[in-house]
Amino acid sequence: MQLFRTVKDLKDFVRTAKKEGKTIGLVPTMGALHEGHASLIKAAAKENDVVIVSDFVNPTQFGPSEDYDAYPRKLAADEKVAEAAGATAIFAPSPAEMYPHKDMTWVEVTGNITKVLCGRTRPIHFRGVATVCTKLFNLSQADRAYFGLKDAQQTEVLRRMVEDLFMNVELRIMPIVRESDGLAKSSRNVYLSPEERKAALILSRSLKHAKEAFAAGERDPRKLVDQVTAEIRTEPMSNIDYVELYGMPGLTEVTGPIDGRVLLAVAVKFGTTRLIDNVVLEG
Amino acid sequence: MQLFRTVKDLKDFVRTAKKEGKTIGLVPTMGALHEGHASLIKAAAKENDVVIVSDFVNPTQFGPSEDYDAYPRKLAADEKVAEAAGATAIFAPSPAEMYPHKDMTWVEVTGNITKVLCGRTRPIHFRGVATVCTKLFNLSQADRAYFGLKDAQQTEVLRRMVEDLFMNVELRIMPIVRESDGLAKSSRNVYLSPEERKAALILSRSLKHAKEAFAAGERDPRKLVDQVTAEIRTEPMSNIDYVELYGMPGLTEVTGPIDGRVLLAVAVKFGTTRLIDNVVLEG
Repeated sequence: MQLFRTVKDLKDFVRTAKKEGKTIGLVPTMGALHEGHASLIKAAAKENDVVIVSDFVNPTQFGPSEDYDAYPRKLAADEKVAEAAGATAIFAPSPAEMYPHKDMTWVEVTGNITKVLCGRTRPIHFRGVATVCTKLFNLSQADRAYFGLKDAQQTEVLRRMVEDLFMNVELRIMPIVRESDGLAKSSRNVYLSPEERKAALILSRSLKHAKEAFAAGERDPRKLVDQVTAEIRTEPMSNIDYVELYGMPGLTEVTGPIDGRVLLAVAVKFGTTRLIDNVVLEG
Repeated sequence: MQLFRTVKDLKDFVRTAKKEGKTIGLVPTMGALHEGHASLIKAAAKENDVVIVSDFVNPTQFGPSEDYDAYPRKLAADEKVAEAAGATAIFAPSPAEMYPHKDMTWVEVTGNITKVLCGRTRPIHFRGVATVCTKLFNLSQADRAYFGLKDAQQTEVLRRMVEDLFMNVELRIMPIVRESDGLAKSSRNVYLSPEERKAALILSRSLKHAKEAFAAGERDPRKLVDQVTAEIRTEPMSNIDYVELYGMPGLTEVTGPIDGRVLLAVAVKFGTTRLIDNVVLEG
């Protein structure tokens, strides 16, 4: 596996791969790779000749009071995970490589899709995500790009962006990977104290119960949201940011009974750590 | 020459061309093709196997009080000009084809580069230009895209966008094409009354005199701007929007004596018609 630190080196690599007629899979990450990322890399390796893993803590998607500085960075370990999962190359640029000018060019998806859920408390987050993914898609010239459904709103935003701008990349959205006890894998799980780690299980448990209620016939969006909210509140260490339900695709408002695909998503703080989780219901 | 009205038809055409290993040149236009456009198409035909001319009056780059509705539309005539100049295909989509969702995805270049000159009175203009060009670049998968230097600020904005987002297209910027009496070719020239048409010659004349002063050694940006301003004011029908000078690339402020490449640009109204013109000085 090759490591590239500069845009120029990545571009040279991509040019050669393209010339040889190879298909390219891209797995955009912020590093601190865990089994969730590994599953994306494995999926990419199955479907493409070349797999590029980007490993870049993107400053523009963090708000001023967020954890940009604290975010875990461990490139040496990431290289091992990426290689074992089947990556061909890892791209770990500096912020200056990715943002060459002080005055930036932004890609911004507007509307409900970026305003609800995490968009409410993280107003610049998805602009940063859309911008860095546009850069990575162009640099890698990827045929397919792989994202986990854990960041469900992110995948909806990127889908809209690709559609709107007619980008030549296929988005492949993969299922959430969980610990054996149900906690969704996240690079931010390392922030949790042992007590918080245990308390955080309320997320996957409450979503599982909502899924069961849905399977048993519950179609009232309000009732499903209330049920999850009430269950998370039974955990004293939890501090709810949101529990919300929206239609997919596009994160549309759901007013009547659920009919079609919906996203039931939660963001909850445990101490200073904010975790997200979700379940997609289809009826 | 083929005419495509839908994104799907254009994509099919591009896919085939790519598969055959052909190089693609794109000439983005708003239609009402004149010899300026024809010169871009000819240049594209010289350098590429396939030339796609887009013919689309882009609504998002017009302000609410601007001439979107009045802008000349004449596809049948455009087809003849494009074909004669060597185009392989013309792409004339509807606004709904180009903007499939009400909530849009914007591409926006920030900073001085979009705030000065036309950016001051047309605050959403370059966001619309950057967005539609991103769509056209992705749809056409162009190896090269051709623009006229008449819209000098546009070319600077697009250059910055391509750099920032690592787009895989080479921008080819071609010289201004003028009428025999010096008036820069523009689709908006048809708006001019015979008197306004004559009065508008003051633009190219004053810029020519500035170029001569520069060649004779004048390096004071203020003096060059004042000279052009004074000369345009001698024409009673003129109504100056701006006469300004900026460094290239990036449209940076020029405080001291000119050293390097600068853009001296004017926007002037004659009646209700706003014309732009410019000269690039290099010293």
